[in-house]
Amino acid sequence: MTNASKQDHVLIFDTTLRDGEQSPGATMTHTEKLEIAEMLDDMGVDIIEAGFPIASEGDFAAVSEIARRAKNSVICGLSRANFKDIDRCWEAVKHASRPRIHTFIGTSPLHRAIPNLNKDEMAERIHDTVTHARNLCDNVQWSPMDATRTEEDYLFRVVEIAIKAGATTINIPDTVGYTAPRESAEIIRRLIENVPGADEIIFATHCHNDLGMATANSLAAVEAGARQVECTINGLGERAGNTALEEVVMALKVRNDIMPYQTGIDTKKIMQISRRVASVSGFAVQFNKAIVGKNAFAHESGIHQDGMLKNAETFEIMRPEDVGLSETNLVMGKHSGRAALRSKLAELGFELADNQLKDVFVRFKELADRKKEIFEDDLIALMRDSDAAEQNDHLKVKSLRVVCGTEGPQEAQLTLTIDGEDKSVTATGDGPVDATFNAVKELFDHTARLQLYQVHAVTEGTDAQATVSVRMEEDGKIATGQSADTDTVVASAKAYVNALNRLIVRRSKSAPNEDVKSVNYKDHG
Amino acid sequence: MTNASKQDHVLIFDTTLRDGEQSPGATMTHTEKLEIAEMLDDMGVDIIEAGFPIASEGDFAAVSEIARRAKNSVICGLSRANFKDIDRCWEAVKHASRPRIHTFIGTSPLHRAIPNLNKDEMAERIHDTVTHARNLCDNVQWSPMDATRTEEDYLFRVVEIAIKAGATTINIPDTVGYTAPRESAEIIRRLIENVPGADEIIFATHCHNDLGMATANSLAAVEAGARQVECTINGLGERAGNTALEEVVMALKVRNDIMPYQTGIDTKKIMQISRRVASVSGFAVQFNKAIVGKNAFAHESGIHQDGMLKNAETFEIMRPEDVGLSETNLVMGKHSGRAALRSKLAELGFELADNQLKDVFVRFKELADRKKEIFEDDLIALMRDSDAAEQNDHLKVKSLRVVCGTEGPQEAQLTLTIDGEDKSVTATGDGPVDATFNAVKELFDHTARLQLYQVHAVTEGTDAQATVSVRMEEDGKIATGQSADTDTVVASAKAYVNALNRLIVRRSKSAPNEDVKSVNYKDHG
Repeated sequence: MTNASKQDHVLIFDTTLRDGEQSPGATMTHTEKLEIAEMLDDMGVDIIEAGFPIASEGDFAAVSEIARRAKNSVICGLSRANFKDIDRCWEAVKHASRPRIHTFIGTSPLHRAIPNLNKDEMAERIHDTVTHARNLCDNVQWSPMDATRTEEDYLFRVVEIAIKAGATTINIPDTVGYTAPRESAEIIRRLIENVPGADEIIFATHCHNDLGMATANSLAAVEAGARQVECTINGLGERAGNTALEEVVMALKVRNDIMPYQTGIDTKKIMQISRRVASVSGFAVQFNKAIVGKNAFAHESGIHQDGMLKNAETFEIMRPEDVGLSETNLVMGKHSGRAALRSKLAELGFELADNQLKDVFVRFKELADRKKEIFEDDLIALMRDSDAAEQNDHLKVKSLRVVCGTEGPQEAQLTLTIDGEDKSVTATGDGPVDATFNAVKELFDHTARLQLYQVHAVTEGTDAQATVSVRMEEDGKIATGQSADTDTVVASAKAYVNALNRLIVRRSKSAPNEDVKSVNYKDHG
Repeated sequence: MTNASKQDHVLIFDTTLRDGEQSPGATMTHTEKLEIAEMLDDMGVDIIEAGFPIASEGDFAAVSEIARRAKNSVICGLSRANFKDIDRCWEAVKHASRPRIHTFIGTSPLHRAIPNLNKDEMAERIHDTVTHARNLCDNVQWSPMDATRTEEDYLFRVVEIAIKAGATTINIPDTVGYTAPRESAEIIRRLIENVPGADEIIFATHCHNDLGMATANSLAAVEAGARQVECTINGLGERAGNTALEEVVMALKVRNDIMPYQTGIDTKKIMQISRRVASVSGFAVQFNKAIVGKNAFAHESGIHQDGMLKNAETFEIMRPEDVGLSETNLVMGKHSGRAALRSKLAELGFELADNQLKDVFVRFKELADRKKEIFEDDLIALMRDSDAAEQNDHLKVKSLRVVCGTEGPQEAQLTLTIDGEDKSVTATGDGPVDATFNAVKELFDHTARLQLYQVHAVTEGTDAQATVSVRMEEDGKIATGQSADTDTVVASAKAYVNALNRLIVRRSKSAPNEDVKSVNYKDHG
């Protein structure tokens, strides 16, 4: 039995900010990344993969700042198999009290062909780069990308080289989401049995959900001896996404009888971060998503008459409280005071300075005038909206009046404040949102294309606030804007302007662009 | 080796219309059920569980009509373990050329306690009910509900009784979504090895996704000898839903190297039915859902610069065409004629009579005037909208004019045609949608509560049509309305009125209510 398999603790490695954020359209701002990292740290994630430092100035800045702020988590950055990447990664993560360098190369025949390295040349590259990383940092993770499609003998060989060169964690990625659980277990078991030095390091499993089996594959790998699971909140990630943190963690908790492993995750914090990641990424969670879907615990929501069922256990294997869903989240009304607001916001994870609180309180009162009951979700949307309206925005919605309906024309009268100056226009369009967006375009010309327009009701009821997400693309740069309002059209206008503001920031930067990744992990640089 | 495991054909049993439709809020209309059943039949589903005939008049009518119309699929109805249920089920399914009765009882200790039967009494009940079903129909499926939490020796005993009484399929449900793949395989393997007569029947696996492992559990059961997988489109179902048909079918196709089993499903029809089920159920599919999510194939969507990757296989294990996603779905513009529209609609699965085509063509032209490019999804939304506006509606939106924006009041001037008579009102509210809904309420008083308000952009672009879904609840009855329009506010008004029309139909029915299930499978009747 190896050292690794003796332990019953499974390390949770969250890559929401790296592999998750890389999903087309899920780009997060610097502030959002810091906030998510803080929540991950706070909920007990062992290792946070905070970004890919060489990919962009934005990634570098985020990883550096997250490293500086981390309290407990190991902070990890990704780097390809070259010294420049690894040096840049170290420059970012070195600020952490517990830094890690993660370096990788594609080892399958398909991936070896791209940098045109033969097996020996690639083996040498692996030796050199892992050695270089280990000389900088004593915590080094190495991944053979597309491991599940790499010849077994070559995989054994390169894993051994990486271990000898100083890797402390070996991650086995199922890059294309191709594996079934038996295979996922088998590859870990065979590595542990056959690679010299395997008992000195931790094996990690990194699965994708293309065939819907990422969670089962991850758990099968754990049963075979892996002691680190790589995952993301809500399973965010390219294509069908990565393994969902919440599924792995709750499966280990609920089925501890057959999978006697522990994680350090405070499961009560799952719902809060799930909602936050859904919000900042613009990737809504479907109703029937395991653990964090709106319906995941809804089978006794009063729609079916289950009066005969005395025993909740009959159809319930988890309690909603276990993931942080409270029975009722009604919190405040129009008579709630400033101290109550501050205290409730702190509970929700928002710590405010006095001047911030003052601004938020004004907006809270405005909302309470329009909406009878203010729920936790409303407060979160309110805070989101404050974040979105940043101080130094070029464009601001000053006023909007829209006339729409079955009889045309649909018309929007819009006043925007552009760099301090008010400009007004009246525009028409197909529907109130189109008319509003046309008005913005007349006042501020741009070539950005709308990629996504989403409306979510924040809470139930006809007076519910709507959160609108708008994703825009200009010259390959993508920005997502959000806004919440009880008026869907106003929220749409603000979200659109918010997305434009973010694009303007990117547009004005000289190369390298702040958040546009100039390289990505598929470049094999 | 048993008969069952000799075969390499896995039967696909779809329960979208029974276990899926049972999800809180996913209620479908009679017409929608017939349409989904036709698509399931057409795509090669072996067995369609069409409903629970004794649950409501609506279920009975739907199962009967689906049975009459089915071309190839076996049509199955659900019934609890009593003669009345089974008789009612037979009355509905007997119209099919290939009918099946599915009867079940909860066999775990928790479930035995509810009807207060001891082991022997339950065993006798199982013998009697399965015998009764088999006397009516030569195709009988029996399920021990909560099988995965039933004592093994008792499970063996009751399965043997059911087989001897004439069951031709034994389904093993993981009712609470509690199982891991090894267990799911083990229970099937142990049953096949230990139960006399096991080689004469087909074992089925029925998994739920509470821990995110339904697909892996289903496939593990197949590898152990199960030859029927019970599943739903999009994994629709209570809580975290059932096994997703598309995941099981595509996993068996993509990984046929290690899972050498075939299904009869035409995978090219997956996307179309996935969209349809998402639309009629109001359960949107998340972007990163395996197989059918918007992003499932999106990794090379031009956002990342993957120029170096010559070989698509590098990151692609399935081709979008395999599930029916076409590269470009731009189909028509304002100059397209009636014949082109008919032919395109037929391709999308909508066969229209001349008078229907005439109406749709008018609406197509209206849309083409407002929208430069008409995509397949626009046409589907247009057809949906035609379905939604039924002939005998009590309420119709005649005209709507809304004024909204940052400066109050938000105001809606609405004219509704109520049972043929026009009534108008001006109402205010918090935002255009709230004002519109308030106007409806002033004109037609009701106590229904808004449960869900969703907006989806049908296609990309600022002139995109929006589809609005509105779910309302009144006295435990739920109805979902939908409408599509380039004007979000108009679509909202129509969807709201559509939901109300559906509630009115239910309200006016004398007991038993058409679609309100008077019993459900948890009642242990």
